[in-house]
Parts: sequence; C-alpha cells; structure tokens
Amino acid sequence: MALTGRRKLLNEVIFGTDTPAGRNFDVFLIWAIVISVGLVLLASISAVAERYGPLLIALEWVFTGLFTVEYIARIYCSVNRRRYIVSFYGVIDLLAILPSYLALLYTGATYLLVIRLLRVLRIFRILKLVRYLRDANILLRALGLARRKIFVFYSSVLVMCVIFGALMFVVEGPEHGFTSIPTSIYWAIVTITTVGYGDISPQTPLGQSIAAMTMLIGYSIIAVPTGILTAELAGEMHRERIQLACHNCSRSAHDPDAEYCKFCGHRLEDAEEVSEV
Amino acid sequence: MALTGRRKLLNEVIFGTDTPAGRNFDVFLIWAIVISVGLVLLASISAVAERYGPLLIALEWVFTGLFTVEYIARIYCSVNRRRYIVSFYGVIDLLAILPSYLALLYTGATYLLVIRLLRVLRIFRILKLVRYLRDANILLRALGLARRKIFVFYSSVLVMCVIFGALMFVVEGPEHGFTSIPTSIYWAIVTITTVGYGDISPQTPLGQSIAAMTMLIGYSIIAVPTGILTAELAGEMHRERIQLACHNCSRSAHDPDAEYCKFCGHRLEDAEEVSEV
Amino acid sequence: MALTGRRKLLNEVIFGTDTPAGRNFDVFLIWAIVISVGLVLLASISAVAERYGPLLIALEWVFTGLFTVEYIARIYCSVNRRRYIVSFYGVIDLLAILPSYLALLYTGATYLLVIRLLRVLRIFRILKLVRYLRDANILLRALGLARRKIFVFYSSVLVMCVIFGALMFVVEGPEHGFTSIPTSIYWAIVTITTVGYGDISPQTPLGQSIAAMTMLIGYSIIAVPTGILTAELAGEMHRERIQLACHNCSRSAHDPDAEYCKFCGHRLEDAEEVSEV
Amino acid sequence: MALTGRRKLLNEVIFGTDTPAGRNFDVFLIWAIVISVGLVLLASISAVAERYGPLLIALEWVFTGLFTVEYIARIYCSVNRRRYIVSFYGVIDLLAILPSYLALLYTGATYLLVIRLLRVLRIFRILKLVRYLRDANILLRALGLARRKIFVFYSSVLVMCVIFGALMFVVEGPEHGFTSIPTSIYWAIVTITTVGYGDISPQTPLGQSIAAMTMLIGYSIIAVPTGILTAELAGEMHRERIQLACHNCSRSAHDPDAEYCKFCGHRLEDAEEVSEV
Repeated sequence: MALTGRRKLLNEVIFGTDTPAGRNFDVFLIWAIVISVGLVLLASISAVAERYGPLLIALEWVFTGLFTVEYIARIYCSVNRRRYIVSFYGVIDLLAILPSYLALLYTGATYLLVIRLLRVLRIFRILKLVRYLRDANILLRALGLARRKIFVFYSSVLVMCVIFGALMFVVEGPEHGFTSIPTSIYWAIVTITTVGYGDISPQTPLGQSIAAMTMLIGYSIIAVPTGILTAELAGEMHRERIQLACHNCSRSAHDPDAEYCKFCGHRLEDAEEVSEV
Repeated sequence: MALTGRRKLLNEVIFGTDTPAGRNFDVFLIWAIVISVGLVLLASISAVAERYGPLLIALEWVFTGLFTVEYIARIYCSVNRRRYIVSFYGVIDLLAILPSYLALLYTGATYLLVIRLLRVLRIFRILKLVRYLRDANILLRALGLARRKIFVFYSSVLVMCVIFGALMFVVEGPEHGFTSIPTSIYWAIVTITTVGYGDISPQTPLGQSIAAMTMLIGYSIIAVPTGILTAELAGEMHRERIQLACHNCSRSAHDPDAEYCKFCGHRLEDAEEVSEV
Repeated sequence: MALTGRRKLLNEVIFGTDTPAGRNFDVFLIWAIVISVGLVLLASISAVAERYGPLLIALEWVFTGLFTVEYIARIYCSVNRRRYIVSFYGVIDLLAILPSYLALLYTGATYLLVIRLLRVLRIFRILKLVRYLRDANILLRALGLARRKIFVFYSSVLVMCVIFGALMFVVEGPEHGFTSIPTSIYWAIVTITTVGYGDISPQTPLGQSIAAMTMLIGYSIIAVPTGILTAELAGEMHRERIQLACHNCSRSAHDPDAEYCKFCGHRLEDAEEVSEV
Repeated sequence: MALTGRRKLLNEVIFGTDTPAGRNFDVFLIWAIVISVGLVLLASISAVAERYGPLLIALEWVFTGLFTVEYIARIYCSVNRRRYIVSFYGVIDLLAILPSYLALLYTGATYLLVIRLLRVLRIFRILKLVRYLRDANILLRALGLARRKIFVFYSSVLVMCVIFGALMFVVEGPEHGFTSIPTSIYWAIVTITTVGYGDISPQTPLGQSIAAMTMLIGYSIIAVPTGILTAELAGEMHRERIQLACHNCSRSAHDPDAEYCKFCGHRLEDAEEVSEV
C-alpha cells in the first residue's frame, strides 16, 4: 500500500534520507539523542544531581515528550505499522520513552532503587544511533560468515573456564577468595581474557602454576577469533572490490589495484569511492 | 564384526546420529550433562549447600546412576569394546561417574578435602559436550599445521619469562613480593600475557623499567601466534572452498566467490552450505 | 618564488636533507630534542629537582634559547612563511618554546600548578621526532583506508561501554565503587580493553556475570580492528611490491618473490631496497 | 683449514648433529641445562635453600664443572677458535659458567647480594636451548622483513607513552601516585599494553578520561604489529611453499595445495615434510 498526502510527506522526513528535510531531521534527532543520554549520565553524578536536580528532571521531560511525539509520528506514517512496532528499532524507540512514564507509577518504599533502574534504561536511546551508521555492512557480513567458527571457539573457552574454575576452587579454596565454583569461573574468565583485576588471585604455588597455564592458554587462543575474522574479512573486502563495476562499460572483476577499467580505460576511482570506502 | 539384533539397535541410538532416536538420545544426554554440571556448581556455593544439601546429594546420585547405566550400555553395544574403553571419550565417561563412587570409600580424617577434589573431577562430564560440536575441524586442522611454529613461539616465551623472572628477583627481591625465582616467573607470565593482576608489582625504578620492557615485548609478541594462525587458517579456508565440488558436474577448483559452477552453470550455494559453513 | 643568497643556503641546511650540512643539522636537532625532553623528565623527579634545581633551570633556558633561534631561522628562510607558521610542525615548534616564556609572566598564587602544566607542554618537542621517521607511509596509508571501518568499530565499542556502564551502575551501585554512570563507563572501558586495573571491580554475583560478559565481548571484538588493519595492510604491501619497477627496463608488476626482472633479467633487489624496505 | 684426528671426531660429536653420537650429546646437554636451571630456581626458594643448601651448592659445582669442560672442549675442537669465542653462543657458554667462579672472589660485606646476582646470571644457560630449536627460521625471517615497520610502530608507542605520562603527571600529580614523569610513563606503558596492574590508577574524572583514551588507543594499535607480522608471515609461508621443488623433476612453483607435481605427477608430500613442516 502506497502512502498519500500528509502521511507520505511525514514518512519521507522521518524515515527517508533522500530529501534535505529528511537529512536535517536525522541530524537533529542524533543531537537530541546524544544530549539526552548526556543528561542521564550527568544526573547519575550525586554532586550534579543535588545542585541541578529540578533542571535535569525538567529537561528529561522535554526530551521524553519530544521522543514520545516522534514515536507516535513514526507509527502514524509507517507503511506497515505493525511491522514497525515489532521491529528492532520500534522496540528500542518504545524502550527509550517507557522508563520515564513508568517512574511516575512506582513511587513508594523502593522509589530510589526502582527509579534509578528505570531512568537508566533510557540509555537504550543511544542504540538509536546505530541506525545512522552505514558501512558496518562488510563487518557484519564477515561476522556472519564467521559465526559458527566463533560459536565453536566460545564454547571451548567457556568449557575451559568451567574446568579451570573448578580446579582452582579445589586448589585454592574459599580462604583465598575462591568462595565457590561460579566465583572461580568468574576468576577464570577474568584471567583467560587477560583482564586481570586482581580482586581474586592465587596464593599457593600450585594455584599460581594453574593460573600461569590459564593465562598462557588465554594469551594464545586470543589468536583464534582474530584469525577467523581476518580471513573472512580479507575475503569479504576482496569480493567487495571485485564486484565493483566500471561506470562507463559496467564490466567488473577488476584487479584490486586497478585504477582504470581494463576493458574501456575509464577511471574507476569514483566508483570505488561510492561502493567501498 | 557387524552387530546384530538388540546390540545393533542400541548402538544406533547411543552412538549414531542418523536416526531420530539417536538424535533425541544425544539431545537428552546434553541436557543431563549441563544440568548435572550446574548442580555441582550450585553445591559449591556454601549458602546453597547448607539449605539444599540433601536434595543436591540425591540429585547427584540420580545423575550418577543415569550416567552409569549409559556407560555400561555404551560398553555393551560397542563394536570393539576394548577400543571404546581406552578411547578419549571412554575415559572421560568413566571419570564422569567414578568420583561419586570413590567418595563412598574414603571416609576418614581427610574426608572433606578428598571428596571435594573428587566431586569436582565430575566437571569433566562437560567435555562430553565437545563430541557434539562439528565444524571445529577447520580450526583443528589449522592449529595442527601451525603446531610446530606455535611450539617454537611458546618455548621462546617461556625462556623469556624465566630470564625476566630471574632478573626481577635480583632487582626487586623478596621485600617487594618477588619471594623466589618461581614466584618471579609467575609474575613474568602474568605480565607478558598482559593479565596484570597487580598482586606482585615492581616498586623500584630499575624494576619498573624492566617490567616496562617485559610488557612491550609481551604486547608485540602477542602478534606472533595471531600471525601464524591467521596465515594457516586463511590457507585452510581457501583450500576448503577450492575442494568444493559442483553437485552437477563434480568439477571443483571454483573461485572463492563463485556462486555458480563455472563449467556447467549449476548453483553452488547448497554444496557450500554442506561442506563449509 | 625562489630563494637566493643567504636565505637559500639556510633553507638548504634547515629544511633540506640532501646536503651533508642539512643532515648534520637534523641529527644535531634530534639529539637536542631528546636531551631537552630528558631534562624535563628528570626535573619532575622531586629528589633530582631539589638537588640539581638551578642547573636544570639553566639548561632548560639554554635549550629554550636554542629552539627559539631555530624557530626564528625557520621563519626567516621559509619559501612561504605564513604556510610554515600555520603548518603542523610550525605550531609544534612554537609550542615547544612558548611554555618557558609564559612561565615568566604567570607568577602568583597558582604559580606552581600552572608552571608545571606549561613546562610539561614542552614535551611536545618530542613530536618533532616524527619528522625524521619515514617508512611510516605504508602504515599510514593502510590506516587511512581502514579509517571508516575503524570509526564504525569505535562507535560500537563506545555505545557498548555506555550501556554496560549504566547497567553496572544500577546493579552494583555507589556502595561498590560504581559512584556514577561516567565512573561506570570508565570501568567498562577498563574492562572491555582488557586493561583491568582492579580499582573498581564488581562484588555481587549479578555484577560479576555482567562483567564476565563485558570481558568476553571485549576479548573477541579485539579481533575486529586487527582483522581490518591486517586485510588493508596486506593489500597495501602487495601493491607496494607490484608497483616496483625494474631499474633497467622500467617494467613493473613483478611477482612478490621475484629477485630478477622477468622481462630483462636485471637484479631487482636494490630497487626494492629503495622503495619498500 | 680442515680438522683431523681427535679434534675432527670431537667436533662431529659436539657441534654436529648428523652422527648418533652428536645427537646423543645434544640431548644429554639439553637435559643438563634444564636440570641446572631448575636447581637455580629451587635454590631461590628460601625454604628449600635452608633445608637442602649444601646439596644444591654441590650439585651447582657439578654442573659448573661439566659446562666448563664442555666450554674448553668446544674451544679445542672449533675450526676457527676466535670466531667461536666471540660468537653469540660462545659468549652465552662463557656467561653460563662465569658467575659460579666470580662468586668465589666476592665474599665480603656485600656477599649475599652479589652472589645472588651472580648465581642468577647462570640462568643464561637456558639460552643455550635456543640452539636446539629449528623451524624458527620462517618466524625470524618474517620478523626481519617487518623490522623497520615494527621500529616505526614502537617509536610511535613510546612517544605516545611519554606524552600521556606527562599529561597524567600534571592532571593527577604526586598525591595520586603519579610521583614523577618517569613513573607516569611507566603507568602509561602499563596501560597502553593493557597489562593494568592497578598499583597506580587515576582518581580524578579528568585523569580517568585521559586514561580511557590511552586504553582505547592501546587497544586499537595492538592491531598494528599483528597486521604487519601476519602480512609478512603469510608472504613468507607462501614463498616457502612455492620454492618447494619436486624430488623427481626438480621443478618448483607448485600451487599451495598441490599434492602431486604438476609437471611429472610425482608425489610432493615428503618433500614438503622436509622443507616446511
């Protein structure tokens, strides 16, 4: 079903990026999102909250109102309303305004904790920004191709963390901070990812030996996802270039370093600018 | 020797994955393993163990019984029983049930410590999961090809850790936590793998300079295993694609980005689906 | 406009690297920069500052005088003076001498703090060193080609840090060190980059679970920039070699491992020495 | 000059690896080195040193004697004695025995400290092990090709560490552990390499912001050495395979995945076994 009249116009402004109005709307929205997220961050600093509390609450309601109007307008001018509402961005758009309204209802004994949780959920507004990022396609396609190998890799890492965690629980025990197997698994993840907080660390020689092994394994298997992704990404980028067609004669399969079409001699650079960089 | 009658049927269910019964058995087994490992984890949390102790012990015996029956059935229906028992999974299957029974025998002064160790060995049940993961082949083959280069790399890393550990023991000494050369080697491994707990850290300017060198070396040699594996993996994935044969004309050596057989025009995608992704 | 007489001579010495005098001037300048930066480092150690304070101040003025003369000489002998002054190195050259003079003016209550800041800015002298590093071209070109993919990557990492930071602020709260969302974002960056100071670390089981997820994500997305850069760098290095022309017959497109020109048999090594290594 | 008689025989045993005697000598030497290094490690643990002190000293002299005899024999049977003595392994061989003898001379007030330093220098014996590792050639050649790019990379990292260190010294100051610019540079290296001990960590919001930037830069430039090395290593491994010549017809330039010579059909695998794996 094609849209007509006002809905069509609104659709072009809100969802489209082809008209100047559509582009301006997107830029305005990005700034509104960034500023409103910045306000949530500021409001979480107790010194700031004490001093500018009322102002921050007022500004929060301004942005909540703005995003509510935007959400209703998006529903109004969608070609397929149901599909928009249940889409990824439809849900994010709702989650970005819901907490402010819910915070009105829950005002009682657990006020402070709940409102904090609800307010913070508004941070999901930032996810809206993702919509404006293109060029993430190559990365996503490479990740898509690598997904099964990466799943195998993660399974192995988790199995290793469970086994090393259990070993350390037995070897070091609760008296050195390894209070339970889940806690020890947390330690194993901290160690194998080379984060190494040091809040829990082995004290006994045997524990330190096992920890050293865990580190060396973590240090080397970090190579595995890099290897997988690099291989996929190189293939994906190669394909991207090969698919590049000459603007003049429409033939493709040019060499990666070709600057002129090998069939008609037309310069390829602008084409490449468009499709790849 | 071919199996007949009941043994053949049981073999198809337990070892096979071709029949619906075989697949259901495998899925059931995975769930049983995951739940039983989860119970071990829960039992290690002292608050949970105090409250649900008897229930957890009862459930442990249920799973021990289940895995015992499974182990006996596997031996019963194996084509070559001896080979199953001494195989990797045969040993893991035995280790997954043995600790519960051994805990019955050893009841003395050191009871608590021993039973804890034995219980935790049951975590090896989780290794059974690996059996169900395919697609790990490319990774394993690439690791196999890279094994000698990775061995050279690890030897160099360990030699460096010993030398830096010894240097730091002399420079910092026991008064700054470097109590012995093995402890200093542990520190060197923590540093070179960029884990950095901070439980032992250099205090003197000279010690900090040597530590900075250790870090910079560790930071750059992390590139070596990644480089080795990426190179092998790229080759392995390339070969995988090249070996891919067209379903129609059986000819292979297609380009990596080919979607149709270049000899007969038949679509290649489903073939690729089977052999590579 | 071509330079003549003394200005031309001075220009060749100061900006040029073709004459022996020009090369000697550059080497002398590098040493002066390194030594003057070393003096700033030494002066920041309180024990050294107390003992050799007057000497360090005197030496600082010697170098400030030297660099001032050099700056004036550079302006004097530039072909286009305005362009030099507003160029990257023109600004760095000015910033490298300005703090010493500014320290003379601001002598009041906040003297100590300000002069420290100004002194330290002189460290930017070290950036002058970059001028002497060639061969950074391939790296820079590869980074240039990868810049948009890397921007997408960084945006995703920052969005993730904001969301995980906000989550941890709610889950752990100020009582476990997560005093505000910005502080929690700092924690998220410390964790996702696998630095892991341990100054802030999660205490609750839920917080530790979220932290473990953050680590595993950080551990795997470290693969993304590596993959991007490796793919670009490999392409760039390949192109570099292919562009290499034979000195004898001027034809290029030689194989990466070619040691002799495949058209005329002339040795390629010296050519490669010049353009690539 | 060719060796004759006893010297030739000894040379074959000590330096050669072609005869059974030469191989046995090498294996014996590796074990002697590993055990003697193990003794140094054990002697550094105070509990062990107190109990087995005399035994460890005796064993140390046994190994010192053994390595002294070996060193003299190596000099005796070298084709070119001077070249052996000043070679890398000649110096290492001397350093591995010298500390034990020097420890006899320095017995006075500083006895304990000096002897510890001297003893520990004997750890350099372990470097002898490097001689026995082959297959490190591809790695070393790739590192050799990448050396200038890696030097540029390290210079940039060090310049960044100096600048970030100086900035943090001004921002955080001695009261938060950043006692001097060199100490702050140490902190910057700890942070940029993602080690993150946490012995020094920023406390102020501005300091934490700069630290976050340092981490993100460190996190992404880790990709650079990996990218350089992977690209060089892939080229080196490719060349290795291409250089592989068929045993039957001596022609090379076979495809990376070729199992049979494409010119004469002879199996290539054994050849590959020899030259590459």
